[in-house]
Order: sequence, then C-alpha cells, then structure tokens
Amino acid sequence: MGIYPIVLSQNRFTHQDNLTYPFEERGLQFGDGIYEVIRIYDGQFYLFTEHVDRLFRSAEAIKLQLPFSKEELKDLLQDLLSQNNMEKDGIVYLQATRGSAPRDHVFPGGVIANAYAYVKDLPRNLANLENGVSAIIKDDIRWKKCYIKSLNLLPNVLAKQEAKENGCYEAILHEEGIVTECSSSNVYLIKNGHIYTHPATKRILHGCVRMAVERFAAELQVPFEEEAFKLTDILDADEIFLSSSTSEILPVVTVDGSPIADGKPGEFTRKLQEAYREDANISERQLTI
Amino acid sequence: MGIYPIVLSQNRFTHQDNLTYPFEERGLQFGDGIYEVIRIYDGQFYLFTEHVDRLFRSAEAIKLQLPFSKEELKDLLQDLLSQNNMEKDGIVYLQATRGSAPRDHVFPGGVIANAYAYVKDLPRNLANLENGVSAIIKDDIRWKKCYIKSLNLLPNVLAKQEAKENGCYEAILHEEGIVTECSSSNVYLIKNGHIYTHPATKRILHGCVRMAVERFAAELQVPFEEEAFKLTDILDADEIFLSSSTSEILPVVTVDGSPIADGKPGEFTRKLQEAYREDANISERQLTI
Repeated sequence: MGIYPIVLSQNRFTHQDNLTYPFEERGLQFGDGIYEVIRIYDGQFYLFTEHVDRLFRSAEAIKLQLPFSKEELKDLLQDLLSQNNMEKDGIVYLQATRGSAPRDHVFPGGVIANAYAYVKDLPRNLANLENGVSAIIKDDIRWKKCYIKSLNLLPNVLAKQEAKENGCYEAILHEEGIVTECSSSNVYLIKNGHIYTHPATKRILHGCVRMAVERFAAELQVPFEEEAFKLTDILDADEIFLSSSTSEILPVVTVDGSPIADGKPGEFTRKLQEAYREDANISERQLTI
Repeated sequence: MGIYPIVLSQNRFTHQDNLTYPFEERGLQFGDGIYEVIRIYDGQFYLFTEHVDRLFRSAEAIKLQLPFSKEELKDLLQDLLSQNNMEKDGIVYLQATRGSAPRDHVFPGGVIANAYAYVKDLPRNLANLENGVSAIIKDDIRWKKCYIKSLNLLPNVLAKQEAKENGCYEAILHEEGIVTECSSSNVYLIKNGHIYTHPATKRILHGCVRMAVERFAAELQVPFEEEAFKLTDILDADEIFLSSSTSEILPVVTVDGSPIADGKPGEFTRKLQEAYREDANISERQLTI
C-alpha cells in the first residue's frame, strides 16, 4: 500500500528516497501550489485528460507556469506507471508549487515550479461502495476560490478530521444553509428522480467524477439539475451520494446521525455506480460492489 | 541578507544544509501548519512573548500539538540567535506542521509535528517608513478563520503579487465594502484624531504590532476604535497606516492611485512610529526615519 519506488520530479524520474525539499519552498511555506489525484484501475488512468486539463486550469488561475506541456505531462505520467510496472488499482498524486525561493509573498522571479508525482496502490473500498457511508454537517469556512485545486487544504483537513472523530466518512459543507460540497468530494441529492448539486461556480471544486456523473445521468435520462440544495432538504431526500476520484460514487446513508430515506443506498445511486464501473472499465473480478 | 547558517529543527540545532523535508509532509501537501515571524532589533526579540503566545493559540485552533512548551521554545529561539551570533536587525521565521505522514486529510496518528526556525537579517526600510507606501484595494477571498496564522497563504500571496504588479506595497482587503486588513499587515484609518481598525474577530489576524498600536494609542491618549471602516471612508481619511512585524508602522499615502489627505504621512502616524521606536528600543543610529 506504499508509494511505488520511482517518482517523478520535474520531468525526470528518480527514486523516492532522493526526493526532498528545502525548508524555503513555496508549497511548504505558503501552500502556493496546486495538485491532482488521478484514479488508476488495472494500471490504466481514468478520466486522465480531465485531470490534466484541470491541473492546467488551476495553474492558470494562480498564475503558475508549469514545467511541462499537457502532452509532456501525460507522457511523463504514463511513463511513471510503466517504470513502476504499476498494473493494479491505485492513484497518482501530482503537485506543483511556485518553487524554492527565499520567503516573500511576492512571486519569486526566475524560479521554476517544483512538480512531483508518485503512484500508490489504492484498492476500491467495496464495503463503502456497497453499504454507503455516514456524514456530518459543517460550516464551509473555505476561501472563495474553491474551483482552484490548491494546496491550501487546512479547512478541508479540519472538516475531514471532525467527520472521523464523529465516526463518519465525510463532512457535508454549507454556507448559510446552502450545501456546497464535502471536504474532499462533491455531493448530490436525489429527489423524485432528479439529481441536484451545487452549480460549478467558484465555490466548489469542479470534480472530474462530477463531470462523469453528469454524463452518466444524461445516458440514464435522469435530469441533472445544477441547482444547490439546502441543509433542510437533506432529511427529505430520496438519496444522497458523493463523488471523488478516490471514493468513486458513494451512497451517503446517514447525515448527522439521521438516516436518508430507509438508510440504505438508493436505486439511482446504484445505477450511477454501475455506469461508473462500465465507464472506468473496472475488471470482471471487481464487478461485485 | 541570507539565512544564518544554524537553524532550529524540532528542539535541536543543525546547519541549514541539513534541513530538508520529504515530499509527503503535511505542510507541503495541505498547508497543515502555522507560523510566526518575530522581529529582531540589535539582536533582541521584539514582542517576543506576544508572538510565542500567538503561535500556541494558532496551534490550539488547528489542534496541533507542538513539540515544545512555550518556555522551551523561547529558550530555543534565544539560543538560535546566540548560536548564530546574531546582533543585527532581522527576523526569526518559525513554522510548525502536522508532520511527515502518508497523505490523508485525516490527522496522522502518532506523528510528531515538524517545527523549524531560522534567522535572517532584515534592515528597517527607512525609505518606506519615511515616505509611506501605496496600496491597492482587493476583495478579501480568504477563509473564515484568518485569526489563525496558518500556512494557507495562497490568497495573501495572490493579493500581494497583484499589489506589486500595480507598483504598490500592499493590498487592502475588503468584504463587501468593509475593510478587514491587508495581505500581510493590519490596516488603520485615522479621522478627526480617532484610530479605526477592524475588531479582532476571526476575520483578521490579531497582529502583535496591532496590540502594540493599541497600547501606544492609549499612552498618546488617542482613541483606538475597534470599529471596521468602509472602502468609502478611505478617501475621506486624514491618515491611513498599516502595521506588521516586518513593516512596523507604515504610512499609506495613496490608495488605488488616489492620495490620502495631502498624500504625505500624517501627524498621528508619526507619533505612533515614534512610540514604536521607543518601545522597541531601536538604537540611536536608527533614530532617523
């Protein structure tokens, strides 16, 4: 379950033991960077182009010049899997910061971004996918540009930790009663056969799996309403689910201790999970969730 | 102007070349940590207790267990100056993160915080103190717990960079017209002999120099009103100034290109600067600002 030995640093490969950072690094001192987590099934990237495109959008939003083009990055990440003979289910974690430089809020001149990526195994969590998970509700205290997948994740960390301390998997975040998303996933409500979720404004991350959910909904002819729902709608929901690259499409069966509908994963969530498995070419051996 | 060779890592000293961090470090991947910048004049800490106390308040706010007590930290930081024979004007930069651990939003179990500190020279910017600086106005897009001095500084970095690109020193931040603070300093407005500044709520950093300004105001019998001012008040102000540990008390003479009053530092700001110099025991050779 550890990190595969060969990691990517800038545009070359090295052993993970060789990859360290100085203490004056803009990721370490300012969180001045961005990241992606890309899902891998049977050694193949899922939603690969979507993740790479989003990385470049995030970079542009913080005026960060990446040390590779999209096509170069894709080749490097494919090589990263090959070099490690990675053929299982896992993830690639990739981040890029504004480099190593004497500490100053102002961008450093003439400094190249620090980028690295590594691969690790991550088996699908079949128990969660089958049984669903629990969530708490928390205030959304994050900044106003959550569409940028930045390294400023302290509020997400605090929310996720509080979920865990309450025996839950996730924290559903809201601003004055309007549900935005979760600490590390998007969230959806199903009512009368319609899927509701916060529109893809600057207040939420535009999840790659969220985009896939929209596509699956169209294929299944289930209306996908980009319309935020309220905290007060949650207990009246037919189904609640969340999505992320590591969690896939995950039923939420209780919120703040109260069951959603009968407290079991609902039929639309099941159909979306099935569409996900097909889309991701998840192999036969894993067809049971 | 570089970093002095001996740095503090946890509770021991090492050469700066030996201090590196692994790529799975919670500061680097989540900004999951806090920091302080403590001013030094003639090799002596200024507002030392205030900074150390605030570090511990920030730690508590993010549930971070620091690897030393307040008294131990104070001794270590004094030793850091001694070991480097630091006798000039400068700063100590100090940060603490939730440690090195496999990436997971949830707090790692049994992992010790990573703390480090270094010293560097920082001469007083006499030209800025004498002539004042310019500022732009920007939306405050930060999170809702700015009283925590966290490493999640991307919005501050972006605001400061934009100030610089506009030929300015700082960005004055506002939320729907209410001025909060600047990207790395507190901000104050003087009108009819009263000082106005945003109250010390969770929306601003409780500056150590801000506390000193409050004290100086009392000594000078100038009313210190913890009452937020508005963007629309700025151009009617008699004086605007900002404060931080690196900037001291700094007149703001133009905002978004428009002069404040006659475009020169005002009399109350000058009195506060003088009180600062006395309080900080700034030596004779520096008495001209």
